[in-house]
Amino acid sequence: MHLKAPEHQVAGHIAKDGKPGPLVDDKGRFFKPLQGDSRGEIEVKFYESFSSNTEIPDHIRRYFPVYHGTQAVEGSDGAAMIVLENLLSKYSKPSVMDVKMGSRTWYPEASEEYIRKCLRKDARSTTVSSGFRISGFEVYDHKELSFWKPDRKLLNGIKVDGVRLALRKFVSSNTLSDTSSKPDAAFASSVYGGSNGVLTQLLELKTWFENQTFYHFNSCSILIIYENESIHDDDARAQVKLVDFAHVHDGNGVIDHNFLGGLCSFINFVRDILQSSDESTENN
Amino acid sequence: MHLKAPEHQVAGHIAKDGKPGPLVDDKGRFFKPLQGDSRGEIEVKFYESFSSNTEIPDHIRRYFPVYHGTQAVEGSDGAAMIVLENLLSKYSKPSVMDVKMGSRTWYPEASEEYIRKCLRKDARSTTVSSGFRISGFEVYDHKELSFWKPDRKLLNGIKVDGVRLALRKFVSSNTLSDTSSKPDAAFASSVYGGSNGVLTQLLELKTWFENQTFYHFNSCSILIIYENESIHDDDARAQVKLVDFAHVHDGNGVIDHNFLGGLCSFINFVRDILQSSDESTENN
Repeated sequence: MHLKAPEHQVAGHIAKDGKPGPLVDDKGRFFKPLQGDSRGEIEVKFYESFSSNTEIPDHIRRYFPVYHGTQAVEGSDGAAMIVLENLLSKYSKPSVMDVKMGSRTWYPEASEEYIRKCLRKDARSTTVSSGFRISGFEVYDHKELSFWKPDRKLLNGIKVDGVRLALRKFVSSNTLSDTSSKPDAAFASSVYGGSNGVLTQLLELKTWFENQTFYHFNSCSILIIYENESIHDDDARAQVKLVDFAHVHDGNGVIDHNFLGGLCSFINFVRDILQSSDESTENN
Repeated sequence: MHLKAPEHQVAGHIAKDGKPGPLVDDKGRFFKPLQGDSRGEIEVKFYESFSSNTEIPDHIRRYFPVYHGTQAVEGSDGAAMIVLENLLSKYSKPSVMDVKMGSRTWYPEASEEYIRKCLRKDARSTTVSSGFRISGFEVYDHKELSFWKPDRKLLNGIKVDGVRLALRKFVSSNTLSDTSSKPDAAFASSVYGGSNGVLTQLLELKTWFENQTFYHFNSCSILIIYENESIHDDDARAQVKLVDFAHVHDGNGVIDHNFLGGLCSFINFVRDILQSSDESTENN
């Protein structure tokens, strides 16, 4: 089995300090190292529960990576890994964004120290103000014919206006490293709009979150992916996926109002960009 | 002008330590003392802004008390008061519940001390877990022919199951002080259900909150009121009203995901009671 580091990792854990990072094979699978303490355990428990939960409708299941169990992986010191669908394996020039959902990333049962650490990060970022934060993104630059990825430190400090700008940049065709020109949001309607676009998918997820009381997705991310190679033929192949379940808790009959509130807010940001790009088209 | 203390105050500030409490007159007006520090100022600013905001649709305006300006009130040391519609003046035997909305009652700009104080209260109550907490309620007991009001300290400690029980008790016809019998939820369909019921009103508010970015209603409550005298004729006259705007902030183009998330969660609690009372009717 030939394994290598994934090419378009925009957020989350990477190989560091001798610890293994995630790996991909050439058969469309993604290997995620089990995180230490209870996190790896919780993530496996979630995938086991979710994949066998018959009350998850198929149109919702497609928003989650397919789970292939766990496996000890050679060459990574035999470390146990979660084997998932590689969400990017069928993309040639993917743009990817990781959006951490919710206005809080902690949960009541956590240690005081953990809560304090999360709270500080939540308040510094747009988590508290906007109900989500952009953890990372990588976008294909059609002018430079290369991928552009903002520094993570730069992203950590952005406020609401920075989020708006990032969501426009993510679907723009002009040079991204050039900060003097306004991002044109040329791909907004193909990526965010349309019956297969991001907004439609988010609204479908929202309907499910208004009712589901199985899981509370603390500190979970929405991944947004689209293909740049086919985008000029208006085939963005936009995908919304939920990832990172190391802090998922039982819903105990209560909906995940924290995720849902953030999702509604994110939906409004996306809708705003679609509406403003509609207006600029009309004005042309 | 004859002023007296309101009869069915279930939560919020009361006369204490020489400070004036709220008063009502016999013309359907409610006088609310301006709270100290910036809170009174913020609440007046909100009412001024809201009452002159032409972008608030009429079907939403009816969920807010009518504002009659501010007034110095004799007999209350000439203290300035906010003059509002007395929401209960036309009710003879009202049941009233105060539900503080949102999974956090603090906001980023507040002092560290204030945030810490709110956080402790939020985590102890159902605010963090359920996205709202019941601050108080008073319900007309059809067996005892008198009003029943749980102790506020008792309410502070309730968890998710306690919220479910309180929401059933609030619409039950059997004796409320008797803890051995299960609340029958006899009025659930007349109060919570129907085209004029609480659920319909909450859903209408939800639609507005999914789009409105004018205000963030931090630490604001939903008041639920219904009439017991006419309830056997199936005329509950159920009303949902938003109250307490001492911590309302500018939305800055972002929806109030904190209020909205809590509202969606509250809607699910109400819907659960309606569904379980439907089932018990079917089984009879």
